[in-house]
Amino acid sequence: MPRVSYVNGYYQRHEDALVHVEDRGYQFADGVYEVCAVLGGVLHDLDGHWDRLLRSLNNLDIDLPMSKAAFTVVLKQMIAKNRLKEGIVYYQITRGVASRDHALGFRPRPSLVVTAKRVGFKDKVMLARHGVGVIMAPDMRWARCDIKSVALLPNILVKEVARRRQAFEAWMVRGGVVTEGSLSNSWIVDEHGVLRTHPLGSQILGGITRQTLCRLAQDLGLSFEERAFTVEEAKSAREAFLSSSSSFVMPVTEIDGVQIGSGLPGEITAQLSAAYWDYVEGQTGVNHWR
Amino acid sequence: MPRVSYVNGYYQRHEDALVHVEDRGYQFADGVYEVCAVLGGVLHDLDGHWDRLLRSLNNLDIDLPMSKAAFTVVLKQMIAKNRLKEGIVYYQITRGVASRDHALGFRPRPSLVVTAKRVGFKDKVMLARHGVGVIMAPDMRWARCDIKSVALLPNILVKEVARRRQAFEAWMVRGGVVTEGSLSNSWIVDEHGVLRTHPLGSQILGGITRQTLCRLAQDLGLSFEERAFTVEEAKSAREAFLSSSSSFVMPVTEIDGVQIGSGLPGEITAQLSAAYWDYVEGQTGVNHWR
Repeated sequence: MPRVSYVNGYYQRHEDALVHVEDRGYQFADGVYEVCAVLGGVLHDLDGHWDRLLRSLNNLDIDLPMSKAAFTVVLKQMIAKNRLKEGIVYYQITRGVASRDHALGFRPRPSLVVTAKRVGFKDKVMLARHGVGVIMAPDMRWARCDIKSVALLPNILVKEVARRRQAFEAWMVRGGVVTEGSLSNSWIVDEHGVLRTHPLGSQILGGITRQTLCRLAQDLGLSFEERAFTVEEAKSAREAFLSSSSSFVMPVTEIDGVQIGSGLPGEITAQLSAAYWDYVEGQTGVNHWR
Repeated sequence: MPRVSYVNGYYQRHEDALVHVEDRGYQFADGVYEVCAVLGGVLHDLDGHWDRLLRSLNNLDIDLPMSKAAFTVVLKQMIAKNRLKEGIVYYQITRGVASRDHALGFRPRPSLVVTAKRVGFKDKVMLARHGVGVIMAPDMRWARCDIKSVALLPNILVKEVARRRQAFEAWMVRGGVVTEGSLSNSWIVDEHGVLRTHPLGSQILGGITRQTLCRLAQDLGLSFEERAFTVEEAKSAREAFLSSSSSFVMPVTEIDGVQIGSGLPGEITAQLSAAYWDYVEGQTGVNHWR
């Protein structure tokens, strides 16, 4: 069955999914995006992603191209047309097509593109049983990392450095502290047993999975603080992990070649993973953790 | 005559100039660009723009899609097909099309897009007789402003602020000093009569017009330093101007509503304008200054 993508009102063969060269997403990175996991054919955390999409659009003063109800229909159609049981839907809204000019005196019609891709999350959970390595790299991004824009050039450059060093992710460091990964949030259980992650603000993207984990940490009664940590604190942590919408809770067992804790996924990490997958199961009926 | 654009080997009606939604320029701002002025049907400063394009591509490890000779043929074809006497050619090279993933284990074929647009530069020179206003705004960009990437979101946001405040350009401020404009370099003649502009480095894009003006300033025997200036120094300057490939030398007579010098374009600015247009005339035969 051919892969189907959605572009501005049309469902098309993926190969034929095209946008104009003067779409401002292409020339100015003038757009935002979201990625939602699909499990058991069901969209996971759509509400959280929708709310963040609205915030990003609002920050850039880009109009919403359609209502939440209509948008949900498009995503469900994409799942159906691609017969997607498990994977991700990616959606991108840009300011639209306009003759190239940095500033605009008018509002073009925003562009909406949706793609879908199969991903075997069971494999990610298998990987999570062992844990992954990350590297540290300078955070070279702009001042508004809280906006989920497609201006991802610093992110892909740092992720490529990680790939070449055979690491799963790069954790970015600004002002002496770890902000987050190139496409995930960063967490540690410090040497005092406190679960920590960088606080919200303009220096990180507030992850939807991060948000759920904050709530679960409280529910579980863990000692937890939204407080930034240094590279040294990360390397001497008892446990470390990263979180994202498509990696869920991924234990980090090595940072820049330094073993974290016992070198195996930690107990608190496992507790959060189990709780997170229970939460996923509640929405989608799928639990790969058990 | 329909406008013609070039996309990956094909000259097409501009309306039909399309790229794939998974072109990494669209999803990651993973690409670079250049804008060349055309005067008298001739490309201005192509060599300088070509050298900078190579540096940008090299910084991002993107392959060059064709030789300089072949590329020059494409640009000249674009000028001919669009019967462009005066205006700009815009060209963008992205890493190419690949299934969306931050890091890539392979090198896709880079995408090359070229568009052409008529611009009446005579009008810009008319504007230069009076001068323009600029505003100051925080420089929110990333750490590698020396790469001419399409990750222009901070630039367009600040340019839009300028437009709404009826200013020609926004000058960006980082660490207390003016770095540059959203799409131009910033210059002053300070209260001691010294011509100054921010030095090269990762905090500014080294403009091709800037480079020529540095040389001309030396040829003219002006007191000149590549040294950053503060907002206060700018506001108390004798003269101010901005430079770019499509605005050439544009006098700035007002900053944040504060009149600069006499409120008219300054003498050194006029001297540099005249010298710059002599240089343009040498290449293209066109001199709008006289």
